[in-house]
This record gives sequence, structure tokens and C-alpha cells, in this order.
Amino acid sequence: MKRKLATFVALITGVMIMVSWTVSPKKNENPAPHKTIKSHWPNGDQLVISVSMQFETGGQPEGAESPFSGNPLPKGQPDLAAESWYRYGATEGIYRMLDLWKKYDIKVTSHVVGAAAVRYPEVAKAIAAGGHEMAAHGMSWDNQWNKNYADELQFVKQGVDAVAAITGQKAVGYNANWLRRSPNTLKVLQELGFLYHIDDLSRDEPFLTKVNGKNFVVMPYTLRNNDIVNIAGNHWTPEMFLSQLKMEFDQLYAEGATKRRMMSISFHDRIGGTPAVVKAMDDFIKYAKEKSGVVFMRKDDIAKMVINDPNTPVDNAEAQYNK
Amino acid sequence: MKRKLATFVALITGVMIMVSWTVSPKKNENPAPHKTIKSHWPNGDQLVISVSMQFETGGQPEGAESPFSGNPLPKGQPDLAAESWYRYGATEGIYRMLDLWKKYDIKVTSHVVGAAAVRYPEVAKAIAAGGHEMAAHGMSWDNQWNKNYADELQFVKQGVDAVAAITGQKAVGYNANWLRRSPNTLKVLQELGFLYHIDDLSRDEPFLTKVNGKNFVVMPYTLRNNDIVNIAGNHWTPEMFLSQLKMEFDQLYAEGATKRRMMSISFHDRIGGTPAVVKAMDDFIKYAKEKSGVVFMRKDDIAKMVINDPNTPVDNAEAQYNK
Amino acid sequence: MKRKLATFVALITGVMIMVSWTVSPKKNENPAPHKTIKSHWPNGDQLVISVSMQFETGGQPEGAESPFSGNPLPKGQPDLAAESWYRYGATEGIYRMLDLWKKYDIKVTSHVVGAAAVRYPEVAKAIAAGGHEMAAHGMSWDNQWNKNYADELQFVKQGVDAVAAITGQKAVGYNANWLRRSPNTLKVLQELGFLYHIDDLSRDEPFLTKVNGKNFVVMPYTLRNNDIVNIAGNHWTPEMFLSQLKMEFDQLYAEGATKRRMMSISFHDRIGGTPAVVKAMDDFIKYAKEKSGVVFMRKDDIAKMVINDPNTPVDNAEAQYNK
Amino acid sequence: MKRKLATFVALITGVMIMVSWTVSPKKNENPAPHKTIKSHWPNGDQLVISVSMQFETGGQPEGAESPFSGNPLPKGQPDLAAESWYRYGATEGIYRMLDLWKKYDIKVTSHVVGAAAVRYPEVAKAIAAGGHEMAAHGMSWDNQWNKNYADELQFVKQGVDAVAAITGQKAVGYNANWLRRSPNTLKVLQELGFLYHIDDLSRDEPFLTKVNGKNFVVMPYTLRNNDIVNIAGNHWTPEMFLSQLKMEFDQLYAEGATKRRMMSISFHDRIGGTPAVVKAMDDFIKYAKEKSGVVFMRKDDIAKMVINDPNTPVDNAEAQYNK
Repeated sequence: MKRKLATFVALITGVMIMVSWTVSPKKNENPAPHKTIKSHWPNGDQLVISVSMQFETGGQPEGAESPFSGNPLPKGQPDLAAESWYRYGATEGIYRMLDLWKKYDIKVTSHVVGAAAVRYPEVAKAIAAGGHEMAAHGMSWDNQWNKNYADELQFVKQGVDAVAAITGQKAVGYNANWLRRSPNTLKVLQELGFLYHIDDLSRDEPFLTKVNGKNFVVMPYTLRNNDIVNIAGNHWTPEMFLSQLKMEFDQLYAEGATKRRMMSISFHDRIGGTPAVVKAMDDFIKYAKEKSGVVFMRKDDIAKMVINDPNTPVDNAEAQYNK
Repeated sequence: MKRKLATFVALITGVMIMVSWTVSPKKNENPAPHKTIKSHWPNGDQLVISVSMQFETGGQPEGAESPFSGNPLPKGQPDLAAESWYRYGATEGIYRMLDLWKKYDIKVTSHVVGAAAVRYPEVAKAIAAGGHEMAAHGMSWDNQWNKNYADELQFVKQGVDAVAAITGQKAVGYNANWLRRSPNTLKVLQELGFLYHIDDLSRDEPFLTKVNGKNFVVMPYTLRNNDIVNIAGNHWTPEMFLSQLKMEFDQLYAEGATKRRMMSISFHDRIGGTPAVVKAMDDFIKYAKEKSGVVFMRKDDIAKMVINDPNTPVDNAEAQYNK
Repeated sequence: MKRKLATFVALITGVMIMVSWTVSPKKNENPAPHKTIKSHWPNGDQLVISVSMQFETGGQPEGAESPFSGNPLPKGQPDLAAESWYRYGATEGIYRMLDLWKKYDIKVTSHVVGAAAVRYPEVAKAIAAGGHEMAAHGMSWDNQWNKNYADELQFVKQGVDAVAAITGQKAVGYNANWLRRSPNTLKVLQELGFLYHIDDLSRDEPFLTKVNGKNFVVMPYTLRNNDIVNIAGNHWTPEMFLSQLKMEFDQLYAEGATKRRMMSISFHDRIGGTPAVVKAMDDFIKYAKEKSGVVFMRKDDIAKMVINDPNTPVDNAEAQYNK
Repeated sequence: MKRKLATFVALITGVMIMVSWTVSPKKNENPAPHKTIKSHWPNGDQLVISVSMQFETGGQPEGAESPFSGNPLPKGQPDLAAESWYRYGATEGIYRMLDLWKKYDIKVTSHVVGAAAVRYPEVAKAIAAGGHEMAAHGMSWDNQWNKNYADELQFVKQGVDAVAAITGQKAVGYNANWLRRSPNTLKVLQELGFLYHIDDLSRDEPFLTKVNGKNFVVMPYTLRNNDIVNIAGNHWTPEMFLSQLKMEFDQLYAEGATKRRMMSISFHDRIGGTPAVVKAMDDFIKYAKEKSGVVFMRKDDIAKMVINDPNTPVDNAEAQYNK
């Protein structure tokens, strides 16, 4: 009977594909059996999904954005409720997400603030032990766009070193505070041996840009599938977030039949790690895994896959800053 | 049993139709076979839908509205994340929407900022090549309500000329920045040979107004079915936007059986062109196309259809400004 | 087969009633056949619903709340887009709602701003011709809470007289601008012969309060089922608004089996009169009408029904102001 | 054919269960018959849910947060509409919620502001008579984080005494205004004989912390399942709130198979007590009760159950303040 069910699903899928054939014969070439897809990803997949899991708790400054920050206490007065809200990321949030990734054998990219790893080394170690990528996110929650070259390099390097000292893993990917890098950031990153950064929203696939004449990977990030923007900021329910994920997936997966498409999803310890959001993500993973040719990857693995691939797009829109 | 179920459903539907007949016999006269509708549109359709696709990216000023603009950087400091968010409109957004219009053979009206076309001529050309209307949207993102007559005329003309130089198409329709025209705008537009403007929210059908004694078409625009208002501004999910479109359609389509009704939908390159919003619009088009007598049209074609039609309403509510 | 369907529905209803009996035998006494309900409404109904339809367009001051008012133009500069948004209420909104009330033979209470009726007398007349209650809403959009007794009386009286001159109907119910009456308002209203006001949110049923020693009816108003609060202000979709209406109805209808319950719904010309909101209300009316003992009433009729009823609650919480 | 459909559904369900077994055999151990669960709660349950029902109406200061407070009236001018909105909590809200708890035989924790009990003693008595916990919430709506030790002790004690004088019940649990306690609060509470406080968001289970060397229980509170945050503040519909509750429940219940998990839900008289929110909660209770091993408890009973249990986590993150 199990086989019958599979047949049934295959038939429905078949019918759906036929319908789309009729409507738009050129756009939706039959993705059909996975192995025979003429994919534009080197690994033959139709859609690459990459999850970012920010670990920042403990690195936040006084008055950092929280459900209480709209009405801040006077400087120096501890906001104990806000602090307890942040602690949730380290006591519950990251562990709950790690359980989810393990359940589905997914590896994610974790952008770790140096100070958070120092404050909660056991959490940083648990992330690394799960096989996830330890990416950099600065030494602390601090503006990066206004630092001079030397200070910025020091700031990034300290964060990398702090996490490496605890977990033994050296970051090759970078995420700046609120995505706001300086005009020097890519040069700083390249000097420090980074392979890619994610603070760019211009494409739905990774691309190459020249930094001091050498290839650097720009990995698409997302404000659309981002818990801090849409759940904390825009007050979506987890169910609304799930709806966004599914609709974005549907579209990108369909496009993936004819071109390279990547879907980025972002979670933060104290938001994405709450029960209902993890439940939403669990439902989404099940939904995505029903399709063939869908893979969840760490961003360092994606960067390595595309950096020398001749089909990777090149975009030097910021060339003025990168030489 | 399956047949019984179908019968049951058919019966329920039948009962519902009978009920609505009984309750409101005059309003909902059976629209029935398309050809026999006594429509109030000259072309015999029951509902005209018109999509606006704003192409503005590259024309925005420093600090323009984005997910980052609530917390602006100091003047002169490039906001690289915000700029990359805008670039999405030119690298992904417009192309994804063009694919959608092509899939369903829909022609839309594209309001193109002059500076955007200059910055991304290949995008402007792709829009024109798709058979879409090149409408005007000013030379750049700039207040229009505070310009004097000569400056305003110059500002509008430059935008028209810039797009015409690139695409060979001269605009006959206008959309002002944030809909905020000056008291002179309609006179300026008429002097420049425009046929219509869209910066009016007072009706669900186009109407005529006298400008310097001659007919000028006012095309209904929308804040209700508008991605920048409801998705970017009011934080609706794409699914919520879809729900709005369907319910608006249901009502206007029903009304279209007895009077002229038009539905306006508006997208912006970097918002409407994201995957989940295009997926929502794809679902909406399928939904709308299930009904007979529904047509998607460019606004210039609508303007030409109504400007000499005696059944087009006349409204001179702004007569004081237009002479 | 039609009879079978009815039987089927009756059976389902029966089962549901039995279930509620079991769970909570005292609270939910079987509402059963309509005529035999031991209702707490004098008319024997289980739930009274009353719709308010505010007609205000044309009476708004410069810079009045609109989708444009967050970013106001300088004083004296006409905001033509905002004005056209308001005009929608008079050209489309009220008429669309009138069609809906007629479709279901519902009479509503229309709170009419005097200046709106003067500006659009044909709209005021159409409301009155539909058999709806012409209630008062001040002469213009103006603060009422800060007027002295004489000025407030004059302001209310002018509004009543303006509408009466156009429609021949004299208001007996009152709604203050943004519900914000002064401490004198009830005395002013009583002096002018009013029967009730609606600017109170404290109960889900009308109650009596003593004003200068005589009974005055306080009719419950709503911010919960209010288009200007939840659609314009809180950015709900019409579908979300419908969900709120249905859930509120479900609860109040159930409570109505054992006590007097009233549901208040509020629409404003330019918001509630848009296509998708009218579609939502249409769906809600169908939903509500499926239950027995549900009636839609004008507020003046409700006031007359309860003012001399000994079961009407008395609440003198504001006694300090009303003598 | 009907039987075939049922078989099909059963098979799908079966397959899904098999899949989850296969993917994560350790996490989701079959909860199966209640008595045999190896639960981490002393009482053998899989999930403990605790509802807070804040009674505050009548204790609010002038200008307190309401739908009107965004646009405050001048000091001294009574905001009669806002006051009537608050009164709803005492006339309708608390009673409606009490009916709901009674319907399902649930006991909740009610955080009562002293001044509210003084203003509406009959409401306080009705809560106590329902078997609910009378917990403390300060004497009035006032900042607590800025009081010195003596003033804070006096403020808390007055509130406890006021409620005890009316209901005969002395609080052992505390909730500070907007969760914002001072660094001294736990010491103050312990001196006054309190057993626990709830102003902490760091865990999904109660934990112990040392205060002056003795165990004090920290009970998890919630901003996620909180009507004032999400319905009043974030403008969720009651249906959206229900969706949040269900998804949070699904996740915590699943986790409860292998560790101690608690779900906290919070309502305020004038918000949670409105019809549609009570309807949502009614639906949620039904949903939760379908699972075995789910129990609704008062927080004092939970505190007593865990305070001497060796499996209760210990967390002294705020040790610096508590000695």
C-alpha cells in the first residue's frame, strides 16, 4: 500500500507538471527524475537552501533591541526582564534548533558573536559538535560601518579568534551587524582569509565579485525569511512565517528547473529558537523535503562549490570600494 | 459513493445559487455565457484588471525608504546593504515579473523612473520588448507637488524623453511620486500630450475630467492591492496579499455584471518581484482566469477605450485646478 | 434532496447542542426552536447585531487621518491624493454598503457628520431612503471633549439640523469624534432630546444611566469590530476582519442563550465601503444568518426596546458628571 | 469508497508516524498511555500549562495604555472613552474568563493589582470563589524598578494585604509592572514570604535560584502567548493568537516526552476577556485536552511541586543581586 501511495503522489505530481507544461511550455521544463535534471548547480540539485543560525546572546549591549527596548530604562539600571529574554537564546533557543537540525540531518551556518561564545562557551561547542559551520559575526554587537580599516580588521579578527579558541573552528564566512558593512569590509575579510560574506540582498544565488583583483563570494542573505525582521519586527505569527517560507520555496523551486536558485533562511537564538517558530520550521523542512533535488547546505560548502565554477555569475556593482 | 459526493456538492452549490437569486434578483443577474453579458465596458468584458509594475531602482535618493531607512546612516556614508536591497529590483525583480506576465500572456503598465532606465537600460528594454506599456513616473524620485509649472513640466518631460531614448516608446500615462501631484499636474500632462494619470483613489472605474476644456482620463490607482503599501509598509505576508486580491476580485467581478468595474494592482521591482509575491500573483491570476469576461489590460489601452465612450463617468471634483 | 440537506444540518446542529449541554449544562441552555427561547431580550431573540455606518467624507479637516497623513504636506498645500481617497467614500463606499444592506434587508445606523451631508446631500438622502437610521456625529470633524456646554450644544445641534434639513430625519443617537465626549455630553444630548449615545466600551449590551435624574441609554460601541481601528489602523486584511467577526459572533451567540448580548460592528464610508471589506461583511452576514434568533437592528429601535424594560442593566459609573 | 478513504487517511497517518519514528527515535518516544510516561515532572504529566489572568482594571493611572493613549488628552481632562474601555475588564472580561475556566474545570493564577480589588471587590471575590490563585501584582500600576528597598517592600505588601482583606487569600507569587523588577525584588519577596515570581523569560520550565541562600522559584512567564503583547500591542487577531498557542503547544508537548516542559499563557481582564479571545482560548483548551498527559495548573501548585524536587534546574544567573 505504501507503494500505492507513492504512485498516487507521483501521478498527482505528473498531472501538475503536465498542466504547467501546457500553460508555459518554455519556462517550466519538466524537472522530472532527479538524476537527469540539467541543473545549473554544479552538484545537480534543483534548489539549495541554506539556514543561518545567529548566536548573539550575551554579546548584546545595554538597551539592545528587545520587547522592552521601546521603553528603555535609564542608563545603568539593569533591565532584568530584557536580560532574561536574551538568556533564553542560550538556555533554550540554540539547543532547540540544534535538535531540529539533528532530526533532519541538516547542517547550518552559525554566525557567532565572539562575546556570546566567550559568555556561553558550552553553547558554541554544542553548535560546532553538531557539524555546523562556525561563521563570524564580529567580536560584539557593535557598528562596523563607521570603523577605520585597522579597527575593523581588529574587530573581525578578535571575533574569529575567540570562537576558534573555544571550538577549534576558524570562520571563512562573515555577517556584519545589521548587514551594515563599511566600504572596506570586503578587503578586510579577504586579508583575513575569508571566502565569502552574506551582507547582500541583490540576488537569489551566490555570485563572485573582485576584491583586490581576486574572486570573493557574495552569498545571498534574506530579510524575507528572517525571524528578527518578520517575527520580532513585523509581528508575524510563526504560521505566517511558515506561509512565507512555503511560497518562497514554491517559486524558487520552480525556477530552479532552469536556473541556479538559492533560498536563504535566518534565525536568531532567542527568536527562532522559541517553540512555535521551531515547529514552523519543522513543518517547512518536511514540506521542502517532499520535492526531489532539494538540499540544505552550509554556506562554506556552497562557497567552495561556486567559487571556481564558470557558471557562477560575476557582479562588480561595488567595484569602486573593492580595490 | 464518489458520485454521491459530487452530487451533494452540486446540490449545495445549486442551493446557494438559488438563494442568492432569491435574495437579490436584480443585482446578481446571471452573468452566464460571456458573449451575451450586457456589460458596461465597451469591449463586453465583465471586469478589467490592470497591473502597474513600477521600475524605480537606481533612481532612489540617498536614504530612500528601505528596510534600513528607519535607522539611517549619516549623510554621505554609503548604506551598502540598503543599496543591495534596491539592486534586487533590477537583477531579479523585474525579470521575475516579466516571466510571470509572459506565462499568462498579460500586458501590464510599467511606470518607469527616468533615472532607473538610464542606470539599467537593459531592464527598460526588456520591459518594452515584452509588449508592456512604458508609462512615466518622473525623471527621478523627487517631490512633484512643490514644483512650479515650468519645473514640473521639465521634470516630467525629462523622464519621458529618457525612457523614449532607450526604448523608443513615449509615455501617455503618468504616476507622480507617492501619488502626490501638484495643482498644475494635469495641465502639465495635457500640454505634454498625455492621455491619462493614475494618482486618484476616488473610484473603481476610469472617469473623464476636463483639463483646459478637453477630456483627460483619470485611471483608478490602488493602495489596497499595492505591494509597497501592504507588504513593505503594513507587513502583510504574500498570502495575506493574495487573500486581499481574491476578495476584492470577488466583489468587483460580481458588481461587474451590472456596471463598469476596474481592478487595479500595483507592484514595485524590489518588492513585487520577490519570489513569494510572484507566487501569490501567479495564484491570483489563475483564480481570476477561472471566471469568464475577465481581461488584463494596459492602462493606455483602457484610456483609449473609454475616452470617447459616452458611458464613461465624468467627474470634475478638481475643476478649480484644471483651467 | 433539499429536505435531506436541511435534515442533515439540523442533525449536526443538534449534535453540537448536545455536546455543549454535556460540557456546560448550566451556561448553554438549549437555544432550540426560536420561539421557545427564554431570551433576555424583550423581542425574544438570542443575539442582536447592530451595524454603524459612519458617513464623514467631505467633513474632514485638512490633514485628516489618511494613508498619506503620516507624512503631511505643508499647511495650505492641497493633498490631492488624500482628498481623492476620501472622495471614494461618497462615490463608491456608501453606495456599495447600501447595496449590501439591501441584499440582506438589513437596517443600520448611520452616524452622519453634518458637513458631509451638506457636501454630498445625495448620499445622505440615499442612506435615509434605504430605511436606515440617521444618527448624529457632530457638525464637523472636530474635538468635542474641550468645548464648553453652550458650544458643545450648538455643535451637536447644528449637525442634527443639517442632516434633518436634507433628509427630514432627526437624530436620537450620538457618536462623538473618536468617541471622546466631554463630561457634559450626556446632559447636552438629553437637553436636545437624544435617546442614546454609543461612546462607551464597557459592556456587551445596552444599559441605562441617569442623566439629570432621567434614564438615558448607553449603547455598546466597538473597537474590536471596527474597520477604522483594525483595517486602516492595525492593517488587518479583510479576511482577518472576517475572522474577528465570526469568532466574536460565535462567543456572543453562545452567551446569548442565557443572557442579553449585543454585537456591535462599525464601518466608515471610505474603508468599510471598499470591495474586499464589503465581501467580508457579506460572508459574515451569511454566517450569522445561519443561526436562529439572530437579528440585525438599528440602534434607535434597540434603544426604544430597552429603555423601559426592567431587565435592562443600570450603570451609573459616571454619575459624577451627569447631574 | 468511504471506507477506502478512511483507510487511506489512516495509512497516511501511519506513514507519517513511521517517518517520525525513523528520523528521531530518541526524541519522540511514544507518549502512549498516560500512566506509563517516564515524565520529568513529579506528577507524571507530559506538559504543564499555566494561565495567568491579570486583574488590573481600576488600578490604572491617568493616561494608561489603551487604544486611546497614543493621542492623550491634556492632564486632568477625563478620557471617558478610555475609562469605559477599562471598565469592560470588570463588567465583562473577568466574568467571561471565569465562565471559561469553570466550563473546563481549570484553575488559573490571577495577578491582582491591589487598587483593582479595592475598586471592584466583587470581582476579586468572584475570582477567589472560583478556586483560582490570588497572586500579587503591586498595590497599583506603578514602576517598581526604581523604588528603594523599603518603598518596594511597602508597595508589594500593601497590594498583598488589600487583596487578602477582601478575599482572605494571601499571595505567594509575584508579577511586577511590565515584568520590570528592581535588583532587590527577589529579596523583598522572600522577606514577605513569597514562594515564586514570574518576571523571567529565560526558560520553558520553572527553576530554582538562591536568594539570601534559600531556594526561590522562578516561574516562566511569556510574551509569546500574551494577549497584551500580541493582541493589543502587535494587533494579532484572536485567530492568529490561537495559531500561536497551538504551534507552541505542539512543540512543547512533543519535547515533554523527554524533558520537563511548561507552557505559560497570559490574559488581561479587558483584552483576554473579550468574546473572540475567549472563543480562541476555548478552542485551544479543547485542542490541548485531546492529548494525554496535559494538565492546567495554578502557579502556586507548580511552585510547591518543584521547589523540593531534585530534578528542578538551578540557575543563579542573577546571583549578584540576590545576596
